[in-house]
Amino acid sequence: MKLADSYKQTQYQLAGHGKRNIEVLKEAFDQVDGEMDSDIYGEGHVIESFERKIAALLGKERAVFFPSGTMAQQAALRIWCDEKGSRKIAYHPLCHLEIHEEDGPRKLHHFEVTHLADETRVIEMDDLINIDDGVSAVLLELPQRELGGRLPSFETLQKISAYCREKGIRLHLDGARLLEVLPYYKKTASEVSKLFDSVYLSFYKGIGGIAGAILAGEESFVNQARVWKRRHGGDLICLYPYIIPADHFYEKRKDKMADYYVSAKELAKSFNACNGVTTIPAEPVSNMFHVHLPLKKEEAEAFIAEIHEETTIGLTAKVQERGNQVYFELSLGDNYQSIPKDALGHLFTVLENKMKTSV
Amino acid sequence: MKLADSYKQTQYQLAGHGKRNIEVLKEAFDQVDGEMDSDIYGEGHVIESFERKIAALLGKERAVFFPSGTMAQQAALRIWCDEKGSRKIAYHPLCHLEIHEEDGPRKLHHFEVTHLADETRVIEMDDLINIDDGVSAVLLELPQRELGGRLPSFETLQKISAYCREKGIRLHLDGARLLEVLPYYKKTASEVSKLFDSVYLSFYKGIGGIAGAILAGEESFVNQARVWKRRHGGDLICLYPYIIPADHFYEKRKDKMADYYVSAKELAKSFNACNGVTTIPAEPVSNMFHVHLPLKKEEAEAFIAEIHEETTIGLTAKVQERGNQVYFELSLGDNYQSIPKDALGHLFTVLENKMKTSV
Repeated sequence: MKLADSYKQTQYQLAGHGKRNIEVLKEAFDQVDGEMDSDIYGEGHVIESFERKIAALLGKERAVFFPSGTMAQQAALRIWCDEKGSRKIAYHPLCHLEIHEEDGPRKLHHFEVTHLADETRVIEMDDLINIDDGVSAVLLELPQRELGGRLPSFETLQKISAYCREKGIRLHLDGARLLEVLPYYKKTASEVSKLFDSVYLSFYKGIGGIAGAILAGEESFVNQARVWKRRHGGDLICLYPYIIPADHFYEKRKDKMADYYVSAKELAKSFNACNGVTTIPAEPVSNMFHVHLPLKKEEAEAFIAEIHEETTIGLTAKVQERGNQVYFELSLGDNYQSIPKDALGHLFTVLENKMKTSV
Repeated sequence: MKLADSYKQTQYQLAGHGKRNIEVLKEAFDQVDGEMDSDIYGEGHVIESFERKIAALLGKERAVFFPSGTMAQQAALRIWCDEKGSRKIAYHPLCHLEIHEEDGPRKLHHFEVTHLADETRVIEMDDLINIDDGVSAVLLELPQRELGGRLPSFETLQKISAYCREKGIRLHLDGARLLEVLPYYKKTASEVSKLFDSVYLSFYKGIGGIAGAILAGEESFVNQARVWKRRHGGDLICLYPYIIPADHFYEKRKDKMADYYVSAKELAKSFNACNGVTTIPAEPVSNMFHVHLPLKKEEAEAFIAEIHEETTIGLTAKVQERGNQVYFELSLGDNYQSIPKDALGHLFTVLENKMKTSV
């Protein structure tokens, strides 16, 4: 059976909050009064009150709701570039703009990109020391998803922030998963955000909404972001189909991030106890990590599909490959806690045994 | 009382399908099974089946759902520009890209725009005769919204289409309100669309969905449009919150466009019978028209607010001004038919009397 199909047929899943189906929308709207007015082109109570709420969470003057982080981040970086009069920006070679946006940042905004750090590690203070003064903005992603959700230390963030301010370089936070790293940093969203000039937060990762993002910063920055939202085609007449679920699931899960983080550490430990299996990071610093297998991609797919059939616990629907690394991503949410302990125990017995015969 | 507030308090409204409130979403999802899978980044039954359905309606090979027409049309024109290797495009000076997109088309795509026709009339065949051969694409908007929804003749469309094909210029249709003009042309959507290389259709105008658009054309064109959707930040993980309502309201209203057209002609006649009031077009060719008043903008706003209070029928929440013209737009939908005839009669008696004393 194909991996994705075998995953769909499992009874439990290690990652996530449950199926992405229409019920997610229905749950969010169940208690909402049908007479409530829609937002209209960025105005109205439903959008303005949510923007104010998340701006306050992030300790920023203003916030604007975007349909996507792709759009929000391109807008943010373009604003900082226009401010300085230079299209030079710097980010990690595995950041979202580099690998998931079909080169939109260059094709639409003509950014001139410098890569910081490399595919094996996150950005550290030393990576910025020789940075071109002409760089308008540096983007940091916390956690660095494509590296299994790794993080620099909070002290490093403080140093990078101070350095960028001194150099007149704007610092932007790809905080798609910002809430997910707060338990590790033992900081509030506002304490992390204040190190950055602009912050993007996603509502369908750990929060588990349908789609949508917030971009926050000072008032003049956010006013410009609203104009770029219109230019990109993101100033939809009604965004409430995403805003109401974003708010609903934010309230439902904002205080569960520490649980997801604890679960991730526990689960990673179980994987690392299996001979040949390793996780990155070895000890997670958020709700996510990567599981690396000493197999070729096709072998890993068949291997995991068999585990799905034997255990009815879903590990992943997709195996990834980078260089000679074969791995899959796990982002923990509500699902993990609902798996019976003996079923989990059985999963790791099966995994351990299969590893012995497969490798 | 302010015009917008007085409009909100009216019992009936001449235009539209009813309030833009959460009930629109609730109605669309009421009969949908919660177990139905979401679309995921452009894939899945819910998005693919709708794209196939609208492609068939428009007689095109493929279609792609976009969150907005702004994004869809910038993508379409960029594809045609890249094909020819020239950023020159041509459209009407009052088209959406020129006046509602914060100059996004130039700032993101560096289009070099030639205006065809002027602010008093639609594009005719003669406007294209001396067009630069380097122009990659011409955009026609049917009906031309900012001119009260005026149209060229179908014969003119055929001539323009043949001319562009001969010259190697791509012809794009801003068909945001395409279904609304079919009763006047006495043509199918496919018969109009086949004159164009690419077609955009909106789902929250006459159809009355929440937001969203379709862009249709040949397979290679649509494949490129999907890439531009990703680049713009429009390839959302889930677009079903717009697609399911688009489909629901398309089915509900696709066969009512002739009724809306007949209503528009009847209502325009009543306005034109009032001394000093005129409509553009004098006889509508779709469900929409503009009502021009011989008053200054502030006078018109106070005048209409008074009518709202006296008749409890809403004319408009917004008066517009262009040059020395003061007018408001009416786009007819389900609301008009629900107004009692005697209430409508009373409205025009009040309007006639007030015009006598105000002008």
